[in-house]
Amino acid sequence: MPRQQVSAEYRGFRTAGIRLTEEILPELESHRTEKLGDTLPAIHRFDKAHLVMLAEEGLIDAGAAAEMLRGLREMEREGVSEARYRVQGGMHSGEQYLIRALGEDVGGRIHLGRSSGDLGAVGRRIATRDHLLVTLEKINGFRTVLAELAPDHADVVMPGYTHTQNAQPTTFGHWMTMWLCVLGRDFDRLRACYERVNTSPAGAAILAGSEFPLNRARTARLLGFDAPVPHTMDAILSHDAECLEAMSVLTILTADLARMADDLQLWFSSEFGFVDLPDRFCGTSSIMMQKRNPYFLEATKAVSEQAAGGLTTAFMVEKGSTGLPVAGRKLIEAALWQAFAGAQKRLDEACMVFRELTVNRERMLEVVRRYWAQGADVAGALVSEKGLPWRSAHQIVGILVRRGFERDIPPLDTTTEMLDEAAVEYFGKPVGLSPEALAAALDPRESVRRRTLYGGPAPEALRRELAEFTTKLGDDAGWVDRTRAYAAETERELEAAIDRLVGEPT
Amino acid sequence: MPRQQVSAEYRGFRTAGIRLTEEILPELESHRTEKLGDTLPAIHRFDKAHLVMLAEEGLIDAGAAAEMLRGLREMEREGVSEARYRVQGGMHSGEQYLIRALGEDVGGRIHLGRSSGDLGAVGRRIATRDHLLVTLEKINGFRTVLAELAPDHADVVMPGYTHTQNAQPTTFGHWMTMWLCVLGRDFDRLRACYERVNTSPAGAAILAGSEFPLNRARTARLLGFDAPVPHTMDAILSHDAECLEAMSVLTILTADLARMADDLQLWFSSEFGFVDLPDRFCGTSSIMMQKRNPYFLEATKAVSEQAAGGLTTAFMVEKGSTGLPVAGRKLIEAALWQAFAGAQKRLDEACMVFRELTVNRERMLEVVRRYWAQGADVAGALVSEKGLPWRSAHQIVGILVRRGFERDIPPLDTTTEMLDEAAVEYFGKPVGLSPEALAAALDPRESVRRRTLYGGPAPEALRRELAEFTTKLGDDAGWVDRTRAYAAETERELEAAIDRLVGEPT
Amino acid sequence: MPRQQVSAEYRGFRTAGIRLTEEILPELESHRTEKLGDTLPAIHRFDKAHLVMLAEEGLIDAGAAAEMLRGLREMEREGVSEARYRVQGGMHSGEQYLIRALGEDVGGRIHLGRSSGDLGAVGRRIATRDHLLVTLEKINGFRTVLAELAPDHADVVMPGYTHTQNAQPTTFGHWMTMWLCVLGRDFDRLRACYERVNTSPAGAAILAGSEFPLNRARTARLLGFDAPVPHTMDAILSHDAECLEAMSVLTILTADLARMADDLQLWFSSEFGFVDLPDRFCGTSSIMMQKRNPYFLEATKAVSEQAAGGLTTAFMVEKGSTGLPVAGRKLIEAALWQAFAGAQKRLDEACMVFRELTVNRERMLEVVRRYWAQGADVAGALVSEKGLPWRSAHQIVGILVRRGFERDIPPLDTTTEMLDEAAVEYFGKPVGLSPEALAAALDPRESVRRRTLYGGPAPEALRRELAEFTTKLGDDAGWVDRTRAYAAETERELEAAIDRLVGEPT
Amino acid sequence: MPRQQVSAEYRGFRTAGIRLTEEILPELESHRTEKLGDTLPAIHRFDKAHLVMLAEEGLIDAGAAAEMLRGLREMEREGVSEARYRVQGGMHSGEQYLIRALGEDVGGRIHLGRSSGDLGAVGRRIATRDHLLVTLEKINGFRTVLAELAPDHADVVMPGYTHTQNAQPTTFGHWMTMWLCVLGRDFDRLRACYERVNTSPAGAAILAGSEFPLNRARTARLLGFDAPVPHTMDAILSHDAECLEAMSVLTILTADLARMADDLQLWFSSEFGFVDLPDRFCGTSSIMMQKRNPYFLEATKAVSEQAAGGLTTAFMVEKGSTGLPVAGRKLIEAALWQAFAGAQKRLDEACMVFRELTVNRERMLEVVRRYWAQGADVAGALVSEKGLPWRSAHQIVGILVRRGFERDIPPLDTTTEMLDEAAVEYFGKPVGLSPEALAAALDPRESVRRRTLYGGPAPEALRRELAEFTTKLGDDAGWVDRTRAYAAETERELEAAIDRLVGEPT
Repeated sequence: MPRQQVSAEYRGFRTAGIRLTEEILPELESHRTEKLGDTLPAIHRFDKAHLVMLAEEGLIDAGAAAEMLRGLREMEREGVSEARYRVQGGMHSGEQYLIRALGEDVGGRIHLGRSSGDLGAVGRRIATRDHLLVTLEKINGFRTVLAELAPDHADVVMPGYTHTQNAQPTTFGHWMTMWLCVLGRDFDRLRACYERVNTSPAGAAILAGSEFPLNRARTARLLGFDAPVPHTMDAILSHDAECLEAMSVLTILTADLARMADDLQLWFSSEFGFVDLPDRFCGTSSIMMQKRNPYFLEATKAVSEQAAGGLTTAFMVEKGSTGLPVAGRKLIEAALWQAFAGAQKRLDEACMVFRELTVNRERMLEVVRRYWAQGADVAGALVSEKGLPWRSAHQIVGILVRRGFERDIPPLDTTTEMLDEAAVEYFGKPVGLSPEALAAALDPRESVRRRTLYGGPAPEALRRELAEFTTKLGDDAGWVDRTRAYAAETERELEAAIDRLVGEPT
Repeated sequence: MPRQQVSAEYRGFRTAGIRLTEEILPELESHRTEKLGDTLPAIHRFDKAHLVMLAEEGLIDAGAAAEMLRGLREMEREGVSEARYRVQGGMHSGEQYLIRALGEDVGGRIHLGRSSGDLGAVGRRIATRDHLLVTLEKINGFRTVLAELAPDHADVVMPGYTHTQNAQPTTFGHWMTMWLCVLGRDFDRLRACYERVNTSPAGAAILAGSEFPLNRARTARLLGFDAPVPHTMDAILSHDAECLEAMSVLTILTADLARMADDLQLWFSSEFGFVDLPDRFCGTSSIMMQKRNPYFLEATKAVSEQAAGGLTTAFMVEKGSTGLPVAGRKLIEAALWQAFAGAQKRLDEACMVFRELTVNRERMLEVVRRYWAQGADVAGALVSEKGLPWRSAHQIVGILVRRGFERDIPPLDTTTEMLDEAAVEYFGKPVGLSPEALAAALDPRESVRRRTLYGGPAPEALRRELAEFTTKLGDDAGWVDRTRAYAAETERELEAAIDRLVGEPT
Repeated sequence: MPRQQVSAEYRGFRTAGIRLTEEILPELESHRTEKLGDTLPAIHRFDKAHLVMLAEEGLIDAGAAAEMLRGLREMEREGVSEARYRVQGGMHSGEQYLIRALGEDVGGRIHLGRSSGDLGAVGRRIATRDHLLVTLEKINGFRTVLAELAPDHADVVMPGYTHTQNAQPTTFGHWMTMWLCVLGRDFDRLRACYERVNTSPAGAAILAGSEFPLNRARTARLLGFDAPVPHTMDAILSHDAECLEAMSVLTILTADLARMADDLQLWFSSEFGFVDLPDRFCGTSSIMMQKRNPYFLEATKAVSEQAAGGLTTAFMVEKGSTGLPVAGRKLIEAALWQAFAGAQKRLDEACMVFRELTVNRERMLEVVRRYWAQGADVAGALVSEKGLPWRSAHQIVGILVRRGFERDIPPLDTTTEMLDEAAVEYFGKPVGLSPEALAAALDPRESVRRRTLYGGPAPEALRRELAEFTTKLGDDAGWVDRTRAYAAETERELEAAIDRLVGEPT
Repeated sequence: MPRQQVSAEYRGFRTAGIRLTEEILPELESHRTEKLGDTLPAIHRFDKAHLVMLAEEGLIDAGAAAEMLRGLREMEREGVSEARYRVQGGMHSGEQYLIRALGEDVGGRIHLGRSSGDLGAVGRRIATRDHLLVTLEKINGFRTVLAELAPDHADVVMPGYTHTQNAQPTTFGHWMTMWLCVLGRDFDRLRACYERVNTSPAGAAILAGSEFPLNRARTARLLGFDAPVPHTMDAILSHDAECLEAMSVLTILTADLARMADDLQLWFSSEFGFVDLPDRFCGTSSIMMQKRNPYFLEATKAVSEQAAGGLTTAFMVEKGSTGLPVAGRKLIEAALWQAFAGAQKRLDEACMVFRELTVNRERMLEVVRRYWAQGADVAGALVSEKGLPWRSAHQIVGILVRRGFERDIPPLDTTTEMLDEAAVEYFGKPVGLSPEALAAALDPRESVRRRTLYGGPAPEALRRELAEFTTKLGDDAGWVDRTRAYAAETERELEAAIDRLVGEPT
């Protein structure tokens, strides 16, 4: 019996007896629908857009095209995922569904001028761009929260740290606006990646395209891409943007969030005692009931640790000659989808956490006063009041601080006599700083207020620079809106084109 | 004896007896000039720019500033590296030199409002941006070579590969223009990184800036930066752009070059025999005199392998709370300088290699004819000539190819009878393709010529899209020129400002 | 109403209103049974062993212990996984099940002296050791196949490669026995890891153990461990063996298998044409019907690429102070289970593939004859027949080979006149090698037969050394058998102890 | 003029005009002596051992052998490194030196039966094994310090941490003995790697060995190897032991040390205040004179971060078909030598640091008392004194702790009334624990003393288990001694054999 009749049992082009003589070992089968992961909806859209383009260009019979498009809409009524899982075939589940439903003479026409190559690439790029866009929105959501909360924390004085040592006085608000800067750059990196990824490989087949005169620009538009990739081999076989760069910028984003979590986890320790998280972000122990384990923070770091592994995998996979990585590329996709999902969840939670974070101002002030974070301000006073060279002033205060620790005298109990004693040790004479100047130098709140320079922690500087960050946030939100609008428009355009071809009212 | 007099022996602020009671263990000493690596010239420039700004803003005595600036020019006569290695002090070698030469009362004034934090960050950012710019130029150099050579190879037909299997016919010129696309994206990534990195941390001290009203915009300009970083904590303690992103985009660039090298190494094997390298890019063996080991290709891959390790190191280092990575960041710098230097060398060599590469057209044609890369074209002929659905055509040719291999009949000896036989097996009737149509389908040169779609391998398509790539190359070269011009202008501006302050004619 | 009565709804110790005031955000909940992964059976066994030990030591009431043990056996009738998924609670699903079934007054007694810490560590170590043991068996299975097949391929002469260049003649059998050596070392590494991992953390709680006098040796035995870990903090908070080392040795194993796959994929290319895989290990293309994509080989490489990412994740996770990585450690576990499962599948498939591999002896011989792999043998003949220093001989043949390529004269057509011509060029006089000696040197089969040195490719050497490898394989198989026997014995011991406690006949 | 006369200018076998027509591009030249790194002494020894074996087996003329051996001893008088740098030639610097000194007719005989392949492999394996042995000694040195210091810290009570939260009371001594366990496993891993690496590739040439009947066992012995690698292809082209495993076990070791450093850095913070480092392991700041940056700790972590990058590089390099990684392998070597050197330095410093570490017992006790690390002991008291099920006891204390925090009542001020109040809330009735039992439970020192279980923190347990660790340390030191003795013996044997051949008295 001729094969093409037995459509209902059609199991794909790989059946034993055609090119190959044996059925593939099940665990090596790549055309499994469950392997599509987050690309499934994109594959479906490509089936539709490709058919529209083929029909519009007269490359396939208009009647067959209409039948197939109706078939795909029928599939949508069943549920695209359900139907595609049912018929199996992975990236070829559309063809498989149509051949079973309409016979090979109709359904066998969908794949003209296309290959698994562009199916995979279209799926990967659409899923990646969509994830990028969602992530960009969530980054902006968190930036909005930070921008709202920072002014309220502009006077919450705390030590800044390097080497886990008290460095200079700053504010919790200043720490918050740092993340506005960091996340602004993350936005820019992900946006640039979006723009590079959102070009269409459709029509490139596996590397050389088709001898049929496909209209690649039309398919690109119907898929919501900005333009076709201008090179068919590059479109399919280069993965620097959609794999290596996407994984890189995502890993950087998650590393940034992990650093933020590490700051908070340190400050959440009983010994630091700077911040407290609401209970619903914490766990406790099955024996140590005192514990409040900051699960949100640890989950945030875990996303980064996983992404970093995905990045190594990505570079391992892409090593080798052009066209080689195929099975491996599925691993990159899996790592991408996982890291995207994780980053999105953590960004949402971060909005909640920051809104409800308890900040212990008293404890922060106690610490910033106690461990000489003000040291440089005392040296600064010697320069501005007494005309000392910076280095001499610094060394004198160095002696002062050492003696303070040796004698267990906290900064606020330090006197001008001790300062003079240190100066005498250093260069043989006292410096004569006034007690008022010393007291002003030793007050961390004053220290912060003095730092009005561009980008500095003084509340007035923070508010001034915040305006800059907010303007950028607005611009970035505008870009997201325009991008969403373009996506919606191209989706409508696709459906309208299908309506025309199947003869339905728009 | 007062310390500040003994300037000639000044060894830096860390001497035992000030803040600390012991000399540091030599191998843990971080203020070694040899640890500056590629940042040394930037540190020198920062010393000059900082002094100019301090003097212009009236923050230090004009006379002392002039003396110090003269001192730094004196240092330039000795040789900046030599002098700084001689006095040691690492990032503080400028201060160390000036205190030794001019005494602490003058030389001790340079560091006002600055910290090791902004010294390190300025050094790292300038060195990174300079490396990025050189790399961008070399990328363009190689793109220029590719753009020149590609048209001459537009008719060199060869198989394209996936899974190391013959896929579709394409051309060596098409493979070359793919690299134009890839390197165009690499250019964009490195340029975006340049723009993010080229903002000035100067004046941010370690995280909170200074209480002295530094003019950060002026210092930024004198250092050739586009603007100051708008947040002092972010400027020093966030490293997403200058470390993580720079290392990422560089690793992607080197991965791209490595893939190109892997293609060539496969094709350079005796068994493939597609290309030949000039002897000066090859080694031979101490016993196997027949060998010509493609050292250039292997060195290219090594740069990528090293960069990938540097990337893991970078993410390892940056894990942890803000301000923690210090020793580790030197590792990232080392990895960056090494990868930059390697990428730059390989890009230069690639220009030479490609200009002199021997391309074996006959062997390429022999292979593309022999292993059925034309299979899809035969199926295409059945669609366009006989109206078959793609899937039926594909399956029929699948049977044909299998039998061809079983019977050891090469593609070019295939007849329409064999095709009909396969069709009969598939759906019970012959397809009746004409011998002319079959012959045209089987000719890989025709296959390529038919693929005129956008981005395709047909010579006319290649030349058409090449114009696009060349336009972008021109734009990118323009950006490099403008960036170079700005850099030169700011350098002149710095020297002119020094001239004014030291009272010398410009 | 007192809480402990409402056992049927018991949802674990973390319920809001006890230590914490809010329910945890669902996506941050760590006590989910689905997060147990491959550790679920080990958690169940620990519940049983811990109860037996507590009862035997008189630390809990014998009646309560018997009731709980009966409860766990009841759970086994339902199906351990099903029951534990039903009641949820993750690692604490045993307690959750027992409290619901028997009330808190009975079921609330199981966790005495234990913590989530040792539950997690026991689960991870048992799952890891069990995976290691299965993997060790499968390594041995593949070694057995290699040892059987190698002698039949001892005379299949082929070129050995370095730099993808023909190096020296060797045999396919010699290449096969190399993998016996490699896999022998992999066995040793995994076995050593097994022995380090198979010590019991049970009783260590989270780091300091319990004040109740637990019999850690007894629990260890009942869990099939070789001994308890001799330090409670180390047992839970150090992960060098079970995480870092296990992931490392596994990544090395998969890298070894990937290299083997890369050899075969190169040789499977049409251009090399050395080997052929059965169709059920290959895919084909939806448009390029000629393709036979070696899915088995690519899947093998993918396992390695994924494992390498898991290794980076593992080191990222473990960075930080003791006790910090918790959420991250789940990522290491996931990477381990995935890599183990992948390696095990590929090892099974490798046995099938190797048994059915088609080896193209003629093509191999053609290549080894053609590209001067015999060059060093010609130089060797000049040394042994004519007393030349090696270097002179090597250089003379170097000239000969260069001229051969320039004139397109293949090795087998080379004459003694050409050799003399080269010698004259080199040192002014001919060398006078006999045609017979030259012919013998140029025959790659002779080249191989001459290499009888220890470890060499000559068939007699291969068979001689194979005996060594087979002996080691036998020893290793013996170790696996003894380890399996010990595991079975301890399982029986556990069940017998339960029988005693619940009063059932053994 | 015949070439072999012009020995004085001999520049190696690669000279243009022999096999190749051009000089190699200088930056691609692999035969540079500076590229030998730490393998240089091993290459020299191989030159000697190979000549001895060739002469003893009669494979080269005894006179020529003697002349060459005398030449190599002459080289030793000049200084091996100096001479080899002078003549250049990298791995072939021995041949280069001998040909220049003795003419090609003598010096050209050294390389018989050898290749760059076994030169490189011998060099790499000897350098790796030597580094492993030194590292093993230094690990033992640090273990010795820990074993000495731990008993003195057996009663220094402190909190153990997980999630950076106070978990259970333990002691600083218990933390110290944990590192004895960890480092004991590191010893075992490095030792196993040593044993796998210390087998001889000599005589394997590049993969197939030589047709000359080399005595590989003899050369192995003269090089201090335990035995020859039993497979010539495996000996040179598999790098799982010397590259992947060596890099893995080293990265694990450095990760372990980094974790220790992270513990100490956290505890060194002012906020924790548990430990203090001597000044010579710290830096200070150029502006923040109060800072004591723990450079030793940061340098320790940096070694680990670098090693982790080296590990990624290693797996990247080794990806690909057999014989491919050559340039890349130099990167693995560089990463190995760097990580070995770093680990060795840090281990030495760790001995000093631990001997001089200031441990703040009061602060530790204050913290362990204050944040409810004793919570589980209170629950334990309810179980042992009042017969409560663990879970009920745990939940009651959970309520107690929550209220304690809400009311700001520290653990030591908690009363039995509060406990009863919590019990009533939990199950409607008080528990009636005696004040004495509560006080005992709340004392962290008692908590530790009660934990006498195997491996626990009680001082008696610590001392008991320490004996075990010390025994193992002794065994391991014995292995190092025997290994050192074997190495010395084989070195003497080599020199004695040379004496015989050159006719000098031993």
